[in-house]
Amino acid sequence: MEHGVPAITWAALALMIVAAKLGGEVASRLRQPPVLGELLAGVLLGNLPAGWLGALGGTNDVVIAFAAELGVMLLLFQVGLESSVGEMVKVAPRAGLVAVLGVIFPSVLGIGASRLVLPDASSSAHLFIGATLCATSVGITASVLKDLGALGSPEARVVLGAAVIDDVLGLVVLSIVSAVATTGAVDPAAVGRITLVAVAFVVGALVIGLGVTRGVYRFAAVLRAPQVLGAVSIALCLMLGSASALAGLAPIVGAYAAGLLLDDVSVRPFGAGGLKKIEDFVSPIVAVFAPIFFVRTGMSVELAGLGVESLLLTVLLVVSALAGKIVCGLGVRGKDIDRLTVGIGMVPRGEVGLIFAGVAAELVQPDGKPLLSRGVHAALVATVFITTLAAPPALAWRIRARNKHETAGGGYA
Amino acid sequence: MEHGVPAITWAALALMIVAAKLGGEVASRLRQPPVLGELLAGVLLGNLPAGWLGALGGTNDVVIAFAAELGVMLLLFQVGLESSVGEMVKVAPRAGLVAVLGVIFPSVLGIGASRLVLPDASSSAHLFIGATLCATSVGITASVLKDLGALGSPEARVVLGAAVIDDVLGLVVLSIVSAVATTGAVDPAAVGRITLVAVAFVVGALVIGLGVTRGVYRFAAVLRAPQVLGAVSIALCLMLGSASALAGLAPIVGAYAAGLLLDDVSVRPFGAGGLKKIEDFVSPIVAVFAPIFFVRTGMSVELAGLGVESLLLTVLLVVSALAGKIVCGLGVRGKDIDRLTVGIGMVPRGEVGLIFAGVAAELVQPDGKPLLSRGVHAALVATVFITTLAAPPALAWRIRARNKHETAGGGYA
Repeated sequence: MEHGVPAITWAALALMIVAAKLGGEVASRLRQPPVLGELLAGVLLGNLPAGWLGALGGTNDVVIAFAAELGVMLLLFQVGLESSVGEMVKVAPRAGLVAVLGVIFPSVLGIGASRLVLPDASSSAHLFIGATLCATSVGITASVLKDLGALGSPEARVVLGAAVIDDVLGLVVLSIVSAVATTGAVDPAAVGRITLVAVAFVVGALVIGLGVTRGVYRFAAVLRAPQVLGAVSIALCLMLGSASALAGLAPIVGAYAAGLLLDDVSVRPFGAGGLKKIEDFVSPIVAVFAPIFFVRTGMSVELAGLGVESLLLTVLLVVSALAGKIVCGLGVRGKDIDRLTVGIGMVPRGEVGLIFAGVAAELVQPDGKPLLSRGVHAALVATVFITTLAAPPALAWRIRARNKHETAGGGYA
Repeated sequence: MEHGVPAITWAALALMIVAAKLGGEVASRLRQPPVLGELLAGVLLGNLPAGWLGALGGTNDVVIAFAAELGVMLLLFQVGLESSVGEMVKVAPRAGLVAVLGVIFPSVLGIGASRLVLPDASSSAHLFIGATLCATSVGITASVLKDLGALGSPEARVVLGAAVIDDVLGLVVLSIVSAVATTGAVDPAAVGRITLVAVAFVVGALVIGLGVTRGVYRFAAVLRAPQVLGAVSIALCLMLGSASALAGLAPIVGAYAAGLLLDDVSVRPFGAGGLKKIEDFVSPIVAVFAPIFFVRTGMSVELAGLGVESLLLTVLLVVSALAGKIVCGLGVRGKDIDRLTVGIGMVPRGEVGLIFAGVAAELVQPDGKPLLSRGVHAALVATVFITTLAAPPALAWRIRARNKHETAGGGYA
């Protein structure tokens, strides 16, 4: 039978989903974020000797690439749903400086490490490697804080606020460094233009979007067709993703903006709990497609490319990543806040760092060579991995130590 | 930025989803099944003069083809979930003859009509056109019976049983006629072989599957990673879809078999209501992807290809489709059953008929020509359309008339 999708592709997708869930399970049992397990499952699948997934064309299959990209877009949409434009504006003054420092410090240190270990690499490669270190994972930090019952603490509020701002900053930085990498030169005028487009897109999407979205949802609420709310929300996510791609940004920027736009006010015409309904609708789709993204990212890590150089790079990048984020905790304003807790909370790169690494694996320089060598790409993934693994226990240790100290000092009050 | 998926594709997917929901809404308001509105929305989109969806490459985009095929697979999986292997075995004796006659009568009449109007068409085209008429839509009949509060009547049980058996028979027939169309000749040995493979696949998948599935789910229930039940079920659907495609059948056969396999026994390790959880998990994904299939099928209907020939064909096919299914009601065993109600209940082709039409649009004969001309394809879609529109009011009329008659005859008892 003539079919657009080869039978092997369906099997590959099924295998990737199952492998992701198994990897996620192993990670959960080791009290690690499931996303790390999904990534490792991909590393395993991608490095099987003569595996049939290699015969399939590995990670290059158009359909699998689409499924992965859809997954990461919907994941960012879901992360965006957890926050709103109003909240972003509210936390900005307190957490803004932490976020900005958390982008600058690790990036500068990372560029330095990259220049030291890879003297022959292009400027855009250095820039991309440094930029990867600026990511902060809202998801992982939030889940650790939640497990510790510390979500209400002032430190938690600063960390989560800064992580959300970092999401936007990181996506803008990603758009800039990707454009620099594909055009080849660090042209200040071009960087300025892209920054302007990026900021204009995000601000414009949020400002115009807030008005338009409410109108769209007031109209959509009139429709009686089943599951209109969820489907219209997915369509909004894809539409803004398309718009951000047309503006030269990553499609995930638009997807994230779509998530931010949707809050209880905009979906009010659907009745109370509309936002919860969207989350319930989106979550199964994310559960199927996002793992395909992480497994595919893992599959792009070629262990054969690892060498002394990339191990050295990994060590220096990890040090840069840790130091850069811990120091940014000094940017907190107000007293009675533990700056070390904030700094540690900013350390995990998680899925955002993996998105940088995933995008990097696809980038080709103007001379036709890939932006990063296999070894460098593996080092980048390893850095994301190690920072994400290190943060949860460190954060737990610091919060418990502080609680103990306060209890000992402050008596039973 | 380098990206696998062009920005325009995201926008096209979003537009297709929104158009489907709008079309579904119009259909709902006219008390018609939403799927008809989704199809009409596609016909509109596909026939816009110089629309940018045409510039996109219309329905040929690999990503959109994948999204549509995933949608129809998950839809068939969802339909399969509504039934179980055990139920199939139970209704078989009573509904089996109705189902078999409901495949044979309309197909034979349809082949006759096709030969009459299209004397120059190939044998495989006649075969495909006739076969399309054998479909029965469980979904549409069930929803009409439900609206009338008649789901518990003996007629309803026979109709639903026969419709489910028809699903399997129809999928086998689809596999056979597709293979005949692509190889070009009606070779009895080949038809025999495909029938054997098809029956062996379905029976084998169900028999082996029942054992293996329970083991898999007992294992999967141990996993703590979030939403394992749903993700593993989707993977099972894709895996069996891949297996049926490798066996030379349509992937939807495997997807349907996967749905049949899953019943409360197999997912029991996940606790009570496991099947309900799978349905809740699958339904948002179907709500996003299945409309893409129907819109795409609608887009493949080229109104410009309609002419006197195809209108004549439509009229004869509609008559064949109605007569063939109404007569098959005579196959019911047992008394006190209204054979006309059963016959009318078998009339709607619905999504199953559209799947035939959608597959037909993709088929290419060995000489490189498409299996069906534009006009014939449009006639086929129109036939599916008209039978689906005609059945609900006719069924409602017959059931109300019978109830009135019985009440009048039987007094207030």
